[in-house]
Amino acid sequence: MIDPRVASGLRDIPPSAMIPRERMLEALRSTFSSFGFVPIETPHIERLEVLTGKGAGSDEVLRQIFEVTNKGGTPGELALRFDLTVPLARFVAKHVDQLGTPFKRYAIGSVFRGERPAKGRFREFTQCDFDTVGTESPVSDAETAQLIHDALAAIDVPAFSIHLNNRKILDGLLDSFGVIDRKAAVLRALDKLGKVGRDGVLKELTSHPRAVEPGGVPEGPTMPEADAARLLDLVEQGKGPGDAVLSMAESRLGPHETAREGIANLRTVLDLLDAAGVPQDRLKLDLGLARGLDYYTGIVFETTVDGWERFGSISSGGRYDDLASLYIKRRLPGVGASIGLDRLLALMEEAGRLPSSATTAPVLVAYFPGVSPTTPVRIAARLRASGIGAEVYPEPISVGKQMGYGSTRGHAVAVIVGPDEEQAEVFNLRVLATRQEDKGLALSTLEDSVQSALGLLGSRPSAD
Amino acid sequence: MIDPRVASGLRDIPPSAMIPRERMLEALRSTFSSFGFVPIETPHIERLEVLTGKGAGSDEVLRQIFEVTNKGGTPGELALRFDLTVPLARFVAKHVDQLGTPFKRYAIGSVFRGERPAKGRFREFTQCDFDTVGTESPVSDAETAQLIHDALAAIDVPAFSIHLNNRKILDGLLDSFGVIDRKAAVLRALDKLGKVGRDGVLKELTSHPRAVEPGGVPEGPTMPEADAARLLDLVEQGKGPGDAVLSMAESRLGPHETAREGIANLRTVLDLLDAAGVPQDRLKLDLGLARGLDYYTGIVFETTVDGWERFGSISSGGRYDDLASLYIKRRLPGVGASIGLDRLLALMEEAGRLPSSATTAPVLVAYFPGVSPTTPVRIAARLRASGIGAEVYPEPISVGKQMGYGSTRGHAVAVIVGPDEEQAEVFNLRVLATRQEDKGLALSTLEDSVQSALGLLGSRPSAD
Repeated sequence: MIDPRVASGLRDIPPSAMIPRERMLEALRSTFSSFGFVPIETPHIERLEVLTGKGAGSDEVLRQIFEVTNKGGTPGELALRFDLTVPLARFVAKHVDQLGTPFKRYAIGSVFRGERPAKGRFREFTQCDFDTVGTESPVSDAETAQLIHDALAAIDVPAFSIHLNNRKILDGLLDSFGVIDRKAAVLRALDKLGKVGRDGVLKELTSHPRAVEPGGVPEGPTMPEADAARLLDLVEQGKGPGDAVLSMAESRLGPHETAREGIANLRTVLDLLDAAGVPQDRLKLDLGLARGLDYYTGIVFETTVDGWERFGSISSGGRYDDLASLYIKRRLPGVGASIGLDRLLALMEEAGRLPSSATTAPVLVAYFPGVSPTTPVRIAARLRASGIGAEVYPEPISVGKQMGYGSTRGHAVAVIVGPDEEQAEVFNLRVLATRQEDKGLALSTLEDSVQSALGLLGSRPSAD
Repeated sequence: MIDPRVASGLRDIPPSAMIPRERMLEALRSTFSSFGFVPIETPHIERLEVLTGKGAGSDEVLRQIFEVTNKGGTPGELALRFDLTVPLARFVAKHVDQLGTPFKRYAIGSVFRGERPAKGRFREFTQCDFDTVGTESPVSDAETAQLIHDALAAIDVPAFSIHLNNRKILDGLLDSFGVIDRKAAVLRALDKLGKVGRDGVLKELTSHPRAVEPGGVPEGPTMPEADAARLLDLVEQGKGPGDAVLSMAESRLGPHETAREGIANLRTVLDLLDAAGVPQDRLKLDLGLARGLDYYTGIVFETTVDGWERFGSISSGGRYDDLASLYIKRRLPGVGASIGLDRLLALMEEAGRLPSSATTAPVLVAYFPGVSPTTPVRIAARLRASGIGAEVYPEPISVGKQMGYGSTRGHAVAVIVGPDEEQAEVFNLRVLATRQEDKGLALSTLEDSVQSALGLLGSRPSAD
């Protein structure tokens, strides 16, 4: 006998988790589509050269690559994708002449990382990405945040906050301080603000950098205390509703060109989001938000669910200068974001916002011995034809067992036919949760009776 | 620069192919759900032991396995799944106690085979499977054929034929001839009927078997000519509408128990399919249909599109005796089928039945320089709120270029706003295909005007 376990770090997704997941995915696809984003699919397997291409992934990610070899193939040539961004860049580089720009695509699929298995961390997980490539328009920046909002609203995520910043503001400030070569270290230090507090960050920003390895280049920031304090002031006060934060930033940052561009961009984006009907209280400026030290060059986004911030960001992204520079010379700026479906589902489950049903059809059709199976089959076909999902229990076992199956699966109602009912062309309609049963309903009223029972129960007529 | 090509035998799926594909998948998921089939997902990566488990796959398939190794992992432990059946068996074995039976699942996902690349053959392709596990009821046999019918009808497949047989009929006949150890060879010979004709098959069935390798056991059938002729008569005449074929088979097969069980099963299934409203002319009995020499033990299905038989079967399946015997002792009979999405899409494309659109939103909103971008963003948000997909062109470039973008993408209509229109709170509505434009429509009529223009064009208001 073979052990039917899955490999370490992988998992099966059972129906109870897949049903809400499919509903979410359907709502996401529908929302992406309503903005004119189009789906693409790229292979799960890419050439290793594409995945490890200079700058394409962090060292951490590259260490986690799954290599793929078929019999007779050459090892070291192929691997599983670790995100959907590298495949997007390759896809656009290859097809941009036919696609034209702006090119707005979404992609939903599995990605693979050989991370050390841990609770809630899997080696295969789903990413949902959308990007607008080939334009620098702030209309696309705003649309990205709008789509994050509309998508999360469409999948019933409770109150959430979209945190916005523009990398140019921090960049401009650091430029004005003369911090050029150590921006990354400064931003890393800022990231610890929540953990070590203002004094801790101040100390790190101003202390002499230490060499990370013998003979290595010294790492870490070192800034005059006054600059570090200005930076921390901006970051600490740079949180909250748009206008106040942007005016504060404007007055503190003065005439620095790059920083002013960042501020102007955020003003335009907030105006556009207002026009788009995104509630202002969903939007939080956060001038300390950096996200991805090198990749992003303009607006950046992170999204947290209010009261569930410990789950981290459930949708993040931003603007980048050039998507496909590893493959082609044509410069392709873009903006996009990713929705963390697995994290979101874990959060929704913990928040008790997922339905616990494990059935996709709300009606169970049960029949007794002595009834021709054509009768339940005909009943179920009629229900489906009127848009009501219906499952026939395939064997005329005891009605108690059939009802037990329905209760376990989560069917809302059962249509039950015994020999007497079949003869009299009637049926019994039972609400599974309450065991309340209406007997002897005329078969001619089937669709209406079931529809109204489901309506009273607040059940969706069909899973999709 | 890195070459942005995909690896040999793999492919990118561009929006023009993905949009109809997503529509099909949505219709399939919805149809599966309406019968109470529930979705599951298993990892793309399985333990090699599971994939190569005795009898789990043919030698041919096992030679095509892609092995997977992560850095620090042990080679030879993991591989990519080559179908969705082996993962189903493993999944059911592992979870059957929690799932209960009957368990009706569907699964849609990529599978991987290192086949020699050829036109139309890819190393990664999509399978759409559905199975009912844990019951021997003919209600489930019929439901499988009904679902093939309803699913193909839901995705606008033109006239098609579901070919049905029950393996017990051929098995019974061969048993009655005393052909026990060479059934597989007989069935392989029968498969060639279309190619080599009756005489060719007769010759193969009756000629002396030749040794396949020196010292090896002789392979190939050898039957008395009279038996071979009876077999060929049954197979050649055993095609067509149900009742006639089954009566013919009954009279020819006589009292053989197994064969009679097969005939009775098909009678019941045809009755149930009639009750389910499946048109009789979609169903073709074919007593020569064997499918999968060892795996199937009862009813079997194949489906061809009328006039497109050269594409082969687009949906196949059947009943099996025991799904998970490699992993657990509990016997789990089942029945299921697979829909060949890639083949179906290739056929539909060649048949000219796929829409050529490459957009998911029917409306393009264009604006001139001098118009605030909040205006098109507000217009698009209003359209979406009333269920009409709308894409804002992100930059106010020349209107000719914006219309060119819309025509290429396949938007049905454009809402156009210049500074005068913005001022007067009106808009122009242009049908892209005809360039006909209604000017100066009141912004208050936006949703109604656009809806009615789309209605006249026969456009779907939204892609989903």
